[in-house]
Amino acid sequence: MTRYGELTAELIQQLESIVGADNCLTDNAIGDDYTHDEMPIYGSYVPQAVCLPASTEEVAAVMRLCSEHSIPVTVRGAGTGLVGGCVPLFGGVVLCTMRMDGILEYDKENLTVRVQPGVRLCDLIDDVAAHGLFYPPDPGEKTGSIGGNVVTNAGGMRAVKYGTTRDYVLAATVVLPSGEVLELGRAVTKTSSGYSLLHLVIGSEGTLAIVTEITLKLVPKPEASTSFIMPFADIDAAIASVPFIRLAGLDPQSIEFMERDIVVDAEEHTGNQVFPGDVDGEAVGAYILVTLDGSDEDEIFQRAEKLAEIAEEAGAFDVLVIDQPSEKEAVWQVRDALLTVIEHDADLLDEMDVVVPPNKIPGFLGYVYGVGAELGLRIRSFGHAGDGNLHIYCVGNGMDEEQFKQKAAAVMEQAYAKCSELGGQVSGEHGIGHAKKAYLRESVGDTAYELMTGIKKVFDPQGILNPGKVCG
Amino acid sequence: MTRYGELTAELIQQLESIVGADNCLTDNAIGDDYTHDEMPIYGSYVPQAVCLPASTEEVAAVMRLCSEHSIPVTVRGAGTGLVGGCVPLFGGVVLCTMRMDGILEYDKENLTVRVQPGVRLCDLIDDVAAHGLFYPPDPGEKTGSIGGNVVTNAGGMRAVKYGTTRDYVLAATVVLPSGEVLELGRAVTKTSSGYSLLHLVIGSEGTLAIVTEITLKLVPKPEASTSFIMPFADIDAAIASVPFIRLAGLDPQSIEFMERDIVVDAEEHTGNQVFPGDVDGEAVGAYILVTLDGSDEDEIFQRAEKLAEIAEEAGAFDVLVIDQPSEKEAVWQVRDALLTVIEHDADLLDEMDVVVPPNKIPGFLGYVYGVGAELGLRIRSFGHAGDGNLHIYCVGNGMDEEQFKQKAAAVMEQAYAKCSELGGQVSGEHGIGHAKKAYLRESVGDTAYELMTGIKKVFDPQGILNPGKVCG
Repeated sequence: MTRYGELTAELIQQLESIVGADNCLTDNAIGDDYTHDEMPIYGSYVPQAVCLPASTEEVAAVMRLCSEHSIPVTVRGAGTGLVGGCVPLFGGVVLCTMRMDGILEYDKENLTVRVQPGVRLCDLIDDVAAHGLFYPPDPGEKTGSIGGNVVTNAGGMRAVKYGTTRDYVLAATVVLPSGEVLELGRAVTKTSSGYSLLHLVIGSEGTLAIVTEITLKLVPKPEASTSFIMPFADIDAAIASVPFIRLAGLDPQSIEFMERDIVVDAEEHTGNQVFPGDVDGEAVGAYILVTLDGSDEDEIFQRAEKLAEIAEEAGAFDVLVIDQPSEKEAVWQVRDALLTVIEHDADLLDEMDVVVPPNKIPGFLGYVYGVGAELGLRIRSFGHAGDGNLHIYCVGNGMDEEQFKQKAAAVMEQAYAKCSELGGQVSGEHGIGHAKKAYLRESVGDTAYELMTGIKKVFDPQGILNPGKVCG
Repeated sequence: MTRYGELTAELIQQLESIVGADNCLTDNAIGDDYTHDEMPIYGSYVPQAVCLPASTEEVAAVMRLCSEHSIPVTVRGAGTGLVGGCVPLFGGVVLCTMRMDGILEYDKENLTVRVQPGVRLCDLIDDVAAHGLFYPPDPGEKTGSIGGNVVTNAGGMRAVKYGTTRDYVLAATVVLPSGEVLELGRAVTKTSSGYSLLHLVIGSEGTLAIVTEITLKLVPKPEASTSFIMPFADIDAAIASVPFIRLAGLDPQSIEFMERDIVVDAEEHTGNQVFPGDVDGEAVGAYILVTLDGSDEDEIFQRAEKLAEIAEEAGAFDVLVIDQPSEKEAVWQVRDALLTVIEHDADLLDEMDVVVPPNKIPGFLGYVYGVGAELGLRIRSFGHAGDGNLHIYCVGNGMDEEQFKQKAAAVMEQAYAKCSELGGQVSGEHGIGHAKKAYLRESVGDTAYELMTGIKKVFDPQGILNPGKVCG
């Protein structure tokens, strides 16, 4: 490992001259927020300076300076990550992209938009919609930055139909650790032009290069969408319906699953009672929430009829059509509240974001709940039934932090091993950061991990960019 | 550059013992086919041995032996490439994957299929259809191997709706140059688990690792599809209609363009007269061929009505509905004959497979035709209007090969420069091989090219796998 240089007062002055004194925070001006992400259990790390550059040129100048003096630089977007990806493990500089929040240019003929990385997803979605277009990726955390979405390959609910962030990034301007500026990809949707450095940077969590501009693919806005709640006896029956839904040619935008107990809490939290607790006297144990979109209501209506047939065959108690705006809002408020409810009820929290083949969901969840019960740790979960991406939480109440960490680590170890055994992956959309490094290595094996480390060295021979994350 | 070892008689015996004597060809048993791909203008190179392994284990054993003795190995699929990607520039071993042609396992619950790399695309498409499912990527060359499709990120006509091969590869077993076997990715559609080695290998043209097994994503089979011929006055008018079609929410499977003169030749070649030469006395200069697919005829009918409106607004002379099986066959025979017609009429041929933003197609084509006219070289083209991927051919008749090569090189140099200027890429789907290396370097710049070369060294420090291709 390179020994890092010292960020002297003189270097801080130089950083100030690059980004402006107001945009270079030191000492007490560095708020606590910059020391962690949204999973505080993974620790708090204080940088020596926080720089907020306004342009690719400023980012490049910061990197040239830090490269010359071997100063570690950790890139941070909105800080909404869940694996400690943006925390400065080795101090140095936190380079926050949130001042680079411009939506620069729409190309409506080629259906693209060029943006800076600090644009928040919610703002991008709204702005694109105002231009009559649609940016499909839909991670639950809407206040995250688009730069963060790119470097974690954020997924979200609509991945079943539309894919993940990776599928919408056509080109990016990046700054290498050396400060050199590079254009990756082009604003075209098809390419076979050498190794895809662009696909390598996507999902690299700020360890290979700093993304300073992104060209995104857009699609026409679906004119209509309707959700459907399918109540089932239990999670096994609910998940068993998914292949039928996927095979029917309905092209669903999303297929989510929720268990009854967490829905009850989320309904209480939001004040919306929209998910039936029983149907004709039969107790509901789990729900599948399907959303169909299309170019008009007629098209969706035709597909809805097919969905109703499938639901009956698959043993759903009912199919509730959610097509009124107020109903839709109520349902999605409940869906969006699931994580909040879990966080609200937990003194201590740790999480997994595994992905398994969709038909393995019930078996995997059953296994993890069993491990939790054995170790005396409450497990809660919800997730994306259509693509097998599960958000599973270890909840600690009435225990001290060390005890919780030990139990959570024991659950995780067994759960990740089981996930691998079932053909799954460590993370569907949250990434690796520093919290999941050991599990990544275990999952991909030493050879793949060493290839990743070798690639890291090609991009960042000094090891100054987001050190301690993902690999190496 | 590593000095390569000599493939001695003893080593050949060892290769024979790995793959069987019948599957290790040497000397006169090596047919001429193994010395070139389908673009013979890029030269003919004779290997010392051709190995046809039957399994991942045999591939691994071949690579262990060749790695130990620094023997260059060039991977070959069906040999249908167009950039010299599978020719053994440095002799040594050609490792042909065509005996590994098994379709191993369908997982209908998770919509995946596991295949060996030597399966031909046409056989895969048919087999998947027989299982009631759909493999969307649709490159024009249907006899290519799926392994070749993966390592060139083959695109095809349906990329507008469905994306390219990259979007369907969920996991792959690969053999590293050292002979080590690695599993990349998993059979899940969402992941954020470290650098995507899988996406790096996709499109790497056999230079980083040998793909020996692939898990592909499948989708439900569209129950109906209809094509529409839209005749226009000229190519500018035809291309100008594309943004309207893309924005209308019709979700077209493909949007192809064809100029009148090449269609005339293809109609003559196939004996199918299906594209009108004039409409109400107005001469047709170019066509847009749109295909819509969906879950039933009604859905397509509704979209077709919208398409007709758009066509009128966009200045199409007419919209011909191609919904009868015999008509469809006739139209697609003509479309599929375009390359054959060009090849048939040419003594000498060279090609480009550039991709530009779709609305730049007319300007770019006009430029290249102009350069060709200036240099006295005939240019012919057709392509994918929906994604900007153009197949442009330099045709040499009545001139000697050296003269042709010089003229073609002059056209290419100017055309690739123009392509870069317009925000395009060197190759949409054919790849780089050895024929397009200089253009790739020019297009991506030295820094990106050196990063690619660095990555190559991480995977293949000896430089034995497909040397001389893509980069390095």
